[in-house]
Amino acid sequence: MRYYAKPLGKLIGELSKLPGIGGKTAQRLAFHILSLPDSEAEALAEAVVEAKHNMKYCSVCGNLTDTDPCALCGDSTRSKNTICVVESPRDVFAMERIKEYKGLYHVLHGVISPMDGIGPDEINLKSLILRLQSDAEISEVILATNPNIEGEATAMYIARLLKPSGIKVTRIAHGIPVGGDLEYADEITLLKAMEGRREL
Amino acid sequence: MRYYAKPLGKLIGELSKLPGIGGKTAQRLAFHILSLPDSEAEALAEAVVEAKHNMKYCSVCGNLTDTDPCALCGDSTRSKNTICVVESPRDVFAMERIKEYKGLYHVLHGVISPMDGIGPDEINLKSLILRLQSDAEISEVILATNPNIEGEATAMYIARLLKPSGIKVTRIAHGIPVGGDLEYADEITLLKAMEGRREL
Repeated sequence: MRYYAKPLGKLIGELSKLPGIGGKTAQRLAFHILSLPDSEAEALAEAVVEAKHNMKYCSVCGNLTDTDPCALCGDSTRSKNTICVVESPRDVFAMERIKEYKGLYHVLHGVISPMDGIGPDEINLKSLILRLQSDAEISEVILATNPNIEGEATAMYIARLLKPSGIKVTRIAHGIPVGGDLEYADEITLLKAMEGRREL
Repeated sequence: MRYYAKPLGKLIGELSKLPGIGGKTAQRLAFHILSLPDSEAEALAEAVVEAKHNMKYCSVCGNLTDTDPCALCGDSTRSKNTICVVESPRDVFAMERIKEYKGLYHVLHGVISPMDGIGPDEINLKSLILRLQSDAEISEVILATNPNIEGEATAMYIARLLKPSGIKVTRIAHGIPVGGDLEYADEITLLKAMEGRREL
């Protein structure tokens, strides 16, 4: 669109690449950014670069972190007996919001999905097995993958894989509406799901 | 929320300051940004800073631009006989989308609103008067402020102000739903509004 000055057009273009941000919203955001004081616009730009540069995956649990190991793995007040297995770092934050679970996490960064060519080796699963083998303290693995086909299949796969080890493997209850998304569940539903977990 | 690592928390905080972006959307965008390649995240940050640094207001019409005078004021193919008066630079882009108006613009950067303490001196109106006095070519002023109370009042005020000068003053037709927002009108409605303009 030639009537946009170049820097403005570029900003609108970059913003509209974000998920859920269409052309009109991108334009609205761009005009808002232009109306901000210099310092605030720079703070936004800096936050993007800083977050991108400083955030990495925890070498222990795979969660997003700016320290290694992450704040959750390094927290001495947390119970070392349970590992809650989730699909993505977003799910860790969702879990933490219920303020009830005090154990550790393991982030798979995906689910087993043969349709998309994603097998057990394509997700962060091997490190979970190594973790369980090297750490005798762990007595329970809670499988908190999303309650959809791939999430259920992944939970079943991990449960079968861990059966010989004798470690207790549980699945969060179906308090979360089936077909839904863990990230968007409200705190109470998530709490119910944690309370109602049952052994597989 | 202490379970967010600092750089992530800062990014979410900055994003949630944007209009229409709540906490959950900010989190969603932040995780998306973290999943981008470094170069793309940097392109976004750069676009913010560049747009903010390079975009300024045209000294002639008050529109957002990266050159002075702006591309519209400097375009020799555009008619120098009409000035379309709008509230904000967004409205210039909305007008340009109809691809029908070929005259000049004047951006008020607001409307007269005594309730908010905004009088004629608080908007970019003086420069319009000076422009009309110094440029004998201009034969029509089209008032395209939004069709709400403040926009109508501002249009009436400008019309009365220009009456003695003998310049034709028109108001865009009420093709735009009254109470609506110029920025979100579709092209056809805007075109009808331009066609149906009447002298005040």
